[in-house]
Amino acid sequence: MRQLAELAAALSLEFRGDGAREFVGLASLETADAQRLSFVAGKKFVAQLDSSNAGAIIVHPDFLSAWSGDCLISTNPYLSFAQATWLFDDRPAPTGAVHPSAVVAEDAQLAAGVTVDANAVIEAGAVLGADVWIGANCYVGAHAQIGARTQLRPGVVVYHAVQIGEDCLVHGNTVLGCDGFGFAPSAQGWQKILQLATVKIGNRVEIGASTTIDRGALHDTVISDGVIIDNQVHIAHGVQVGEQTAIAGAVAIAGSTVIGKRCTIAGQAGLADHIVIADDVHIGGQGRVASSVTTAGHYASGSNLQPIKEWSRSAVRFGQLDAMSKRIAQLEKRLEALASTSEKSGS
Amino acid sequence: MRQLAELAAALSLEFRGDGAREFVGLASLETADAQRLSFVAGKKFVAQLDSSNAGAIIVHPDFLSAWSGDCLISTNPYLSFAQATWLFDDRPAPTGAVHPSAVVAEDAQLAAGVTVDANAVIEAGAVLGADVWIGANCYVGAHAQIGARTQLRPGVVVYHAVQIGEDCLVHGNTVLGCDGFGFAPSAQGWQKILQLATVKIGNRVEIGASTTIDRGALHDTVISDGVIIDNQVHIAHGVQVGEQTAIAGAVAIAGSTVIGKRCTIAGQAGLADHIVIADDVHIGGQGRVASSVTTAGHYASGSNLQPIKEWSRSAVRFGQLDAMSKRIAQLEKRLEALASTSEKSGS
Amino acid sequence: MRQLAELAAALSLEFRGDGAREFVGLASLETADAQRLSFVAGKKFVAQLDSSNAGAIIVHPDFLSAWSGDCLISTNPYLSFAQATWLFDDRPAPTGAVHPSAVVAEDAQLAAGVTVDANAVIEAGAVLGADVWIGANCYVGAHAQIGARTQLRPGVVVYHAVQIGEDCLVHGNTVLGCDGFGFAPSAQGWQKILQLATVKIGNRVEIGASTTIDRGALHDTVISDGVIIDNQVHIAHGVQVGEQTAIAGAVAIAGSTVIGKRCTIAGQAGLADHIVIADDVHIGGQGRVASSVTTAGHYASGSNLQPIKEWSRSAVRFGQLDAMSKRIAQLEKRLEALASTSEKSGS
Repeated sequence: MRQLAELAAALSLEFRGDGAREFVGLASLETADAQRLSFVAGKKFVAQLDSSNAGAIIVHPDFLSAWSGDCLISTNPYLSFAQATWLFDDRPAPTGAVHPSAVVAEDAQLAAGVTVDANAVIEAGAVLGADVWIGANCYVGAHAQIGARTQLRPGVVVYHAVQIGEDCLVHGNTVLGCDGFGFAPSAQGWQKILQLATVKIGNRVEIGASTTIDRGALHDTVISDGVIIDNQVHIAHGVQVGEQTAIAGAVAIAGSTVIGKRCTIAGQAGLADHIVIADDVHIGGQGRVASSVTTAGHYASGSNLQPIKEWSRSAVRFGQLDAMSKRIAQLEKRLEALASTSEKSGS
Repeated sequence: MRQLAELAAALSLEFRGDGAREFVGLASLETADAQRLSFVAGKKFVAQLDSSNAGAIIVHPDFLSAWSGDCLISTNPYLSFAQATWLFDDRPAPTGAVHPSAVVAEDAQLAAGVTVDANAVIEAGAVLGADVWIGANCYVGAHAQIGARTQLRPGVVVYHAVQIGEDCLVHGNTVLGCDGFGFAPSAQGWQKILQLATVKIGNRVEIGASTTIDRGALHDTVISDGVIIDNQVHIAHGVQVGEQTAIAGAVAIAGSTVIGKRCTIAGQAGLADHIVIADDVHIGGQGRVASSVTTAGHYASGSNLQPIKEWSRSAVRFGQLDAMSKRIAQLEKRLEALASTSEKSGS
Repeated sequence: MRQLAELAAALSLEFRGDGAREFVGLASLETADAQRLSFVAGKKFVAQLDSSNAGAIIVHPDFLSAWSGDCLISTNPYLSFAQATWLFDDRPAPTGAVHPSAVVAEDAQLAAGVTVDANAVIEAGAVLGADVWIGANCYVGAHAQIGARTQLRPGVVVYHAVQIGEDCLVHGNTVLGCDGFGFAPSAQGWQKILQLATVKIGNRVEIGASTTIDRGALHDTVISDGVIIDNQVHIAHGVQVGEQTAIAGAVAIAGSTVIGKRCTIAGQAGLADHIVIADDVHIGGQGRVASSVTTAGHYASGSNLQPIKEWSRSAVRFGQLDAMSKRIAQLEKRLEALASTSEKSGS
């Protein structure tokens, strides 16, 4: 239970109403009851205030008049809501201990407050900073380094020599530092190129579940500070991701590509290898990024969903587009000629 | 070994031929030998009967005359085949015991017949129903609930408070209940929104390997009864999937999207966030679903594969489509004008 | 440290310069210092030689004159580079022992030199060839067979009866032999078809991290010798992949599809079920392969990335393509008619 005044203080916001009102959690405007705090993220949600049963809302000063009940007043309600979720944190907490079933190499270095959960394995020379939390069944390879307060959820695999910064969160079954897909063709088949570099991950990076980030062949794969990465993402060897870039689910980024700062890459987009994406570039879902993008802005590719019969016709015509274009040019030429003849005959 | 009469009885089908004939398994019409049972799934396979060496087939009454050998007679041969596979089940069976290397919290509740395999970890307050099977190296988080007879294959990660129904099967290294990808932008970068809700999975749900289903932020992610989900699927926070919907490999579904009942979503399709898909909607492979689909039916997007030179020209023209359309309109206008002039001059 | 003459001998190459010069590793032309070996993979990199500080380079005889420093002379510098990476291998080595925390069934067969790392689980009847390395937290199911010198990185799950050849490498958290996605529709919902066949993987196969390869229903899923597969790949039941084919990240291949030899399938491409891809077919990134490809060559589909406003117009027009095509045909017809009228009136 949290009181309204307590929430206001914790969020450094002013409040209006009964400071002793108690809250058990957060909810959307539609589902919130009298014991839950909600929020108005923007103008389009103001109309929902009339029918909301929320005990209080986080609201922008501009929309205060639309709500007669209790509230927290914020110039950025969505950010305040995000911060408020931390006041209702009910996640399991780390024990601060190494579970007896964990296998920790004798020369691994564990700083104060490190938690290693059941059946996790920490290899020789690994360095875990203060208050690091290694989840159950995780693997931390030889000489890997994990910065203070970083947490690995269960099943994460960190290969040897990978470096992870401070205050990171890595979700279940993600793999960091696996080999890049590097092979030279030969008469006998594919000759593997050992991936001799590693992965370096900055501070305050969050990485989703079942994501894979390859180690580099000759230069490191680099994930900069403040980057957020969703589930099922594939980041190949030697890729560099700039600060605060956000990468959504199932995106695949091929080798040695460099992505700028503050980019957003929507779900299932694919980036070719050895290209450069400028800062502040935003790629739409399933975006097909085959070459460098040098100018900030929003980009997309692909076609929209159609009923299958209509789509079939569109798809057939797509294959005829060059011919269609040439027919248009031919029509223009012939019409020009005809018009000129017609003018002459008409003159 | 199973005798024909025994198979017929188990499948509640009539048979024709030698009831004592013995079978070691199932096979396709092409590869079946005298000890294997095959089936004719539909009319187009009837022609293959002539050359099949199957010991017996499952066949529709309408096609009985096309096969002179032993058979099981079914009005739905494909369904009967599916049921018949269970009569040849050779999968390893659960032991019904907790392996000594498993780490099970003292206050976890294990009903009768629960199997917990080697090196699995069951956290505090978890509740496992009768005959649940937790595979090796699995992780079941605090207060997670798993219904009777549900089986987790090795390496599955179930976060705290996730609820899984009865008779479900979850394949290796899948992650259930990881954090949704929720962040608020701020001047200091991305502010994480704690994902305070959970995942609720119904009964008779099958989930493939290396799939990820996020927990919700404010409301639960819901997978309804009878849903089937393939490998490498990404289901984001707050998604709802209706009963008996089938989701194929590598599909990605963004946050808060609601999918109806009995839909099928083919491989690598992507669904945007906050959209609604009606019941009985069928999305083709790589479908790009950017907005709601309100009418049942089949849908697709994208273009067909072409030899790369032809495709290059199509792709260039795609970028010129608006200009092409305007040139056609211009042509129509000019032709109209010319025709009208021509008529006048011809009159 | 490796001396130039030693590298030359190990790679069976001639060298020019100071055979005693010492090297600590490899690097690209841009980043190499005097203690690192670099290489010129092709003509387009020759211009970079001027500014490179590499201690030596691997170079084709044709470009020898462009480099005055020490070098290794190779008719295939990229292949020689790939081979050279193995001379600087600094990966952790297997211990050759079974870790006491591993759980190995009594009747599992372990040949000489097998390593089983911490908390791995080997089930009954599994057969591990000489010098096999099972990483930490791996699972090897009952009666699975793993050929000599094959290595599984941590967290790999191998289901029962799966067969893996010799000299393979499987990366972290990959799942081999999970159930194919096979269900028959029924009035009561989806009836699961047991997947009674298995996965057979040849020799010298590399498989990336978090990849999934399903076991077959009635016939095996087959990965041939020398195939290389990247991360996050989905290979469905009954698929056959021919020798030396390369499959890049996040590709999805649906059931029973047969892929030829020496194909390359770029990232996020998707292949429909029951199709056949000829030898030496190369599919571009995000390729949408809905039907068989019978001729060797390069293929692609999809559209190119555009600024979103331009793309929106292209996408709308894509949906109108059939109508546009008909308008062009109509224009051609009317123009023909008008020209003919005009000629008559002009005659």
